[in-house]
Amino acid sequence: MVIGGSSGIGLGIVRAALGEGALVTAVGRSRDKLEQARAALGSPTFRGVTADVAQEEQVAALFGDHRFDHVLVTAVEGYYERIRDFDIARARRTIDSKLTAALCIAKHARLREQGSLTFTAGIAAQRPGPGAAAVAAVNGAIEALVRALALELAPVRVNALGPGWVDTPFWDAFAGESKQQRFAAHAGRLPVARVGAVEDLGSAALLLMTNGFITGETLRVDGGHRLV
Amino acid sequence: MVIGGSSGIGLGIVRAALGEGALVTAVGRSRDKLEQARAALGSPTFRGVTADVAQEEQVAALFGDHRFDHVLVTAVEGYYERIRDFDIARARRTIDSKLTAALCIAKHARLREQGSLTFTAGIAAQRPGPGAAAVAAVNGAIEALVRALALELAPVRVNALGPGWVDTPFWDAFAGESKQQRFAAHAGRLPVARVGAVEDLGSAALLLMTNGFITGETLRVDGGHRLV
Amino acid sequence: MVIGGSSGIGLGIVRAALGEGALVTAVGRSRDKLEQARAALGSPTFRGVTADVAQEEQVAALFGDHRFDHVLVTAVEGYYERIRDFDIARARRTIDSKLTAALCIAKHARLREQGSLTFTAGIAAQRPGPGAAAVAAVNGAIEALVRALALELAPVRVNALGPGWVDTPFWDAFAGESKQQRFAAHAGRLPVARVGAVEDLGSAALLLMTNGFITGETLRVDGGHRLV
Amino acid sequence: MVIGGSSGIGLGIVRAALGEGALVTAVGRSRDKLEQARAALGSPTFRGVTADVAQEEQVAALFGDHRFDHVLVTAVEGYYERIRDFDIARARRTIDSKLTAALCIAKHARLREQGSLTFTAGIAAQRPGPGAAAVAAVNGAIEALVRALALELAPVRVNALGPGWVDTPFWDAFAGESKQQRFAAHAGRLPVARVGAVEDLGSAALLLMTNGFITGETLRVDGGHRLV
Repeated sequence: MVIGGSSGIGLGIVRAALGEGALVTAVGRSRDKLEQARAALGSPTFRGVTADVAQEEQVAALFGDHRFDHVLVTAVEGYYERIRDFDIARARRTIDSKLTAALCIAKHARLREQGSLTFTAGIAAQRPGPGAAAVAAVNGAIEALVRALALELAPVRVNALGPGWVDTPFWDAFAGESKQQRFAAHAGRLPVARVGAVEDLGSAALLLMTNGFITGETLRVDGGHRLV
Repeated sequence: MVIGGSSGIGLGIVRAALGEGALVTAVGRSRDKLEQARAALGSPTFRGVTADVAQEEQVAALFGDHRFDHVLVTAVEGYYERIRDFDIARARRTIDSKLTAALCIAKHARLREQGSLTFTAGIAAQRPGPGAAAVAAVNGAIEALVRALALELAPVRVNALGPGWVDTPFWDAFAGESKQQRFAAHAGRLPVARVGAVEDLGSAALLLMTNGFITGETLRVDGGHRLV
Repeated sequence: MVIGGSSGIGLGIVRAALGEGALVTAVGRSRDKLEQARAALGSPTFRGVTADVAQEEQVAALFGDHRFDHVLVTAVEGYYERIRDFDIARARRTIDSKLTAALCIAKHARLREQGSLTFTAGIAAQRPGPGAAAVAAVNGAIEALVRALALELAPVRVNALGPGWVDTPFWDAFAGESKQQRFAAHAGRLPVARVGAVEDLGSAALLLMTNGFITGETLRVDGGHRLV
Repeated sequence: MVIGGSSGIGLGIVRAALGEGALVTAVGRSRDKLEQARAALGSPTFRGVTADVAQEEQVAALFGDHRFDHVLVTAVEGYYERIRDFDIARARRTIDSKLTAALCIAKHARLREQGSLTFTAGIAAQRPGPGAAAVAAVNGAIEALVRALALELAPVRVNALGPGWVDTPFWDAFAGESKQQRFAAHAGRLPVARVGAVEDLGSAALLLMTNGFITGETLRVDGGHRLV
């Protein structure tokens, strides 16, 4: 199950998992986006389900009694705003969509013993940009949460991906026409000289799901962003 | 200003600051506890103010237009529960009392250029105990938040204390009669062979407030708990 | 090229790389062990070369002008001793075999632009056991070194593996007959309830070599050892 | 005892310790510098001793059977060079002067139970600049070493300072005439808008020596350098 699997990083992970022969359930809030994903993937082992995972009852219904092998979460509704002007209601939505949702998912997901639960943190926890206070905070929360859950949900493994800047539809909305310019400037600073692709996150996610000796870890896939 | 300054670690920091000749405003939710603190301290430069800092309007009223030298926050309402049974409403209270409150305080506090803002994280972010998922998450959030705010509120410095187990009234409530036994066992494991005293946090807090070259940092005062 | 590839974790990585169709050069100090590895692997794309990578001239000769895709280093000669009794000559050997060797390799290796350089750190950097001062230090050195080299050798990616306890011939020598007992006790403490297998390190190493957006990172493959 | 106490950060710490009424033994390699320090300090409780702490026998002689309260080490001979051109002999000197010396000091120092041992790491471990491979590595080694020694030498506390750019004679030698220009550019990037002063390190060092509940920790005093 990939929560947030209808677009962006989540969709990249869905594609990587389908490529390994997995049955994948993608969860999103938008039926349209899930429909588009299904059409684009054209895979008989893909299923789309709508749910808002910041709502506990929807999370409970989503999992029911079904036991999954791997659950991975990329969904987030992150707001960026200077702290002096921050609309606290939006900060709460940022927190709910990533942290409260993560707690609800950890509470209700039923996983096989060899299974895994993978969340998504992000570069703002280490190298916050302008207006990133709430996003940095929830990313940092996820890194600590996977350590706590790795102990509580053991032997199920619990990890996080820590993506840097990845070329996804989020950036089209976030940066609009300046996207290419910002990406070029960022690539020029990064050791790897490019921004991330969803495939980079897909292969990293597969490792976290399948490697039986990694738990409580945040794997940073950021092109060296922490260092520049 | 010490938010959460009516008892425990906060009160220890109030005492340390008064010892350095500071005018101290302690903020708490309980008028009774503030009254007890005032009586115990017997200092003419101590002032107590009631407020619930998880409520934005109360935070705004608390600061008004007054410019403070240093604001330090220890207040938290943390719940511990196995994730499978976690009451999500209580998780939200844990989050609100520490993370949302921190965002509200950072939004509304007015600080002098040489001033500082100091939050309190905690050992659960690195070495979570049973039931600590929500507490670990908000502690991790605080560590990332001070990095973001150190950039946004510069030149004001923003840091966090990272206490381990400290002998405070919280533990009387949390562990009850088993407190001494748990403390003895913990002390036996720690390199420093004792649990923390509020004075340990007081001197560390003073450094974070007064050292003009420390910012974005979490200073761990845990007796080596991370290592055992 | 896998330096230290004749046994243990290194041999596991050789096997994983051969499984992906790579041409592999394994480097070790012992011709006998390399011969055994060759016999065990039975692969036409495996080649063994003897060298001591703590000697700069041997490293220079090892690489010559040949350009490699990926170089991975697991070799180490680590000594454990109480600090009061530590034979400083042995500490120097520990340092030379891991840190000085890493500097020599980084200086002389010629890598393709899409290539990678991967070192091996280890759990002692975070959770040192008895007598681990020198080993902890060089492991911590490697974690910082990959950050520095990720910048200097860019766009070549530079990372580290951070293994926990892995069932290798090292443990037969280190723990002798008590190995199984120590492994059982350790497994009982770990979230994943087992010690590591060389295959766990093999898949993690392959990710670090092939994922083009991970650099400057230490990937911990320790079964959650940091948390217990 | 302050090893490296004849100039720079070490001298700042000597001054801070004398200010607290301590008897201070400063150790350096240069008798002239120690003489200058003595003249500048004009303190009856200051004593200068020459020794090269990368030589074990000199370290053993330095401590003898005397039991110290606190030992702090800032001495280092760090070389910066592009890795492709790195003179490995100089890398060894960097390693010996900081890491091997630290092991020798930890082996031979005799400390009172309430005492402390404090080393100096540095910003290159997190945010390495050009040519910093060897310096980054030994700084990272120190951070891991204090974790190992905090366990082994307990109840003696073992910590590290993590300075950023501090205005010391090192910079006059390292940057020469470009010092002021580089400092101005660096200050412009830092949240605190200035480079460090030796007094910033002095107060941080005093906390690490005197706070009985901090051990195994690296306290970063870098003006927010890690974040920019």
